[in-house]
Amino acid sequence: MELKRLETDETLRELKTHGDSRFPFQYYLDDFSLYENHWEDWHWHNEVEFASVSSGCADCLIGQQRITLRPGEGIFINSGVIHRFESNENGKMPNILFAPDFLAPRGSLIYEKYVEPVTASSCEYLVLRQAEPWHRELLSMLYQTYAALEQTEMQEYTIFQHVLQLWRILFQNAGINPTPKEPRGNTLQQARLQLMMQFIHDHFAAKITLEEIANAASVSKSEALHCFHAGIGTTPVAYLIQYRLNRAAGQLLSTTASVSSIAMESGMDNVGYFCRKFRQEYGMTPSEYRKNGALRQNRKAPSEGSPPIG
Amino acid sequence: MELKRLETDETLRELKTHGDSRFPFQYYLDDFSLYENHWEDWHWHNEVEFASVSSGCADCLIGQQRITLRPGEGIFINSGVIHRFESNENGKMPNILFAPDFLAPRGSLIYEKYVEPVTASSCEYLVLRQAEPWHRELLSMLYQTYAALEQTEMQEYTIFQHVLQLWRILFQNAGINPTPKEPRGNTLQQARLQLMMQFIHDHFAAKITLEEIANAASVSKSEALHCFHAGIGTTPVAYLIQYRLNRAAGQLLSTTASVSSIAMESGMDNVGYFCRKFRQEYGMTPSEYRKNGALRQNRKAPSEGSPPIG
Repeated sequence: MELKRLETDETLRELKTHGDSRFPFQYYLDDFSLYENHWEDWHWHNEVEFASVSSGCADCLIGQQRITLRPGEGIFINSGVIHRFESNENGKMPNILFAPDFLAPRGSLIYEKYVEPVTASSCEYLVLRQAEPWHRELLSMLYQTYAALEQTEMQEYTIFQHVLQLWRILFQNAGINPTPKEPRGNTLQQARLQLMMQFIHDHFAAKITLEEIANAASVSKSEALHCFHAGIGTTPVAYLIQYRLNRAAGQLLSTTASVSSIAMESGMDNVGYFCRKFRQEYGMTPSEYRKNGALRQNRKAPSEGSPPIG
Repeated sequence: MELKRLETDETLRELKTHGDSRFPFQYYLDDFSLYENHWEDWHWHNEVEFASVSSGCADCLIGQQRITLRPGEGIFINSGVIHRFESNENGKMPNILFAPDFLAPRGSLIYEKYVEPVTASSCEYLVLRQAEPWHRELLSMLYQTYAALEQTEMQEYTIFQHVLQLWRILFQNAGINPTPKEPRGNTLQQARLQLMMQFIHDHFAAKITLEEIANAASVSKSEALHCFHAGIGTTPVAYLIQYRLNRAAGQLLSTTASVSSIAMESGMDNVGYFCRKFRQEYGMTPSEYRKNGALRQNRKAPSEGSPPIG
């Protein structure tokens, strides 16, 4: 059996369209066991996405964020946002995608007043947890939308009504700042950045060069530097080192391995250099960091905003 | 205070548009005390209409039908259908009008599958009575739509959702035959027919000539004949006589006036001619008709399909 793989263009835009122009809505039951490496690689689409996890776990990666979704949880991903899903063998994620103008045609008052303020906002995604009442309400409407696909009577009409209700709950509660997002700049540049960051996440433990990072996005070294600077205000090598330090910090807390072996496993052969950099980043030595581990864990749980730490 | 009057073009199309292209929806609270003669004269619009009576009574005239609506009752009037409202001093009729593509854009699956089959059907109107559960449900959603106009939060979005639900109830229950209506022929001709029929309804008690009937629509006598033939398969004079007989039949049952005075009041001076024609139409003499009145009333209550009988 051939494993699935998302096809994208050079900007990471997914080549497949979802639904058709007459009914721009599509339901999928993503089964990660059918995907190469159990992930859906970096991609974006103009459609907004509502996904939920029905079994296993799924990590949704957006920018430098990694959001772990457990069964019953879900996520809203805004139009045009580059994202990636990772899961394990048994991860299953029903989800819907629809074009923003499925809700109301462009130029209509409904579109301008209730659709565009969300799709054009700086909100990239919203995690939906069962603990929050309005998240629960939204998730429940999402499940009803899936269920509508089993109906035969007025199926599309029911889906349309459910999706409008889904959007209503989102609009009413999400407190989305109607200030439009910063001009995103170059989509191609963002896509390249995401590919290079992914390369770093996949190969941080090995020696990697700027040239290899640039190759991941098929660009020159100067374009690689430009993408990192424009996108996240740093250099590829600084990002690599920061990523390694974060990984190492995670290992310090979650394993009993020695500082030097953790440094090595994080791709930093020179233990002296590792300790110096670690101190710059965390304000203490690796050993002190481990010692204060439990305390720190309580004081500042690794937020969803942190790069993955093992 | 100047009294209201609907402005129409020569096809009786209302000149005023309802809502705007960005939000083609409009609510009105029609107060018949503000209208000339307490009526809204013959007109049509592309918008579909849902109206309900909140006080007094209102008669809705469509083609040759006269539908009396009492408080709590309502009516759906399809797109493009010529109609007229008559009421008394205290009649009040909240109503909404919206363009069919308010529900979904033309060319979309929702429009083609759920909107057009109704707007293009031969269904001209649907009377909504409290006795029928789904009519009640629809009327209740109509009142909720009126109420949404008092809200400030997401007002237009709420209206949109309510109107979609209104349409759902209609579509699901009305058993509308998706066979498109017969080509309506010439809208101008229909408008002229309606004006001439109205002239007959207003002046049947007097002597009226074909020329006067034709003048009511500013057309020649031959065009008048053509309009009646094409529209309702009869002649203006035959329609006039039938209308007079129906009025007389109503008077026979509802008054104790003599047959000859009823004949006169119905515009038929020649009592012999009246009795002959009455027998042709009802299969009995006016006196027999009166005698059998109560029985007939029970056997066959004047249907909404009958021309007005007093």
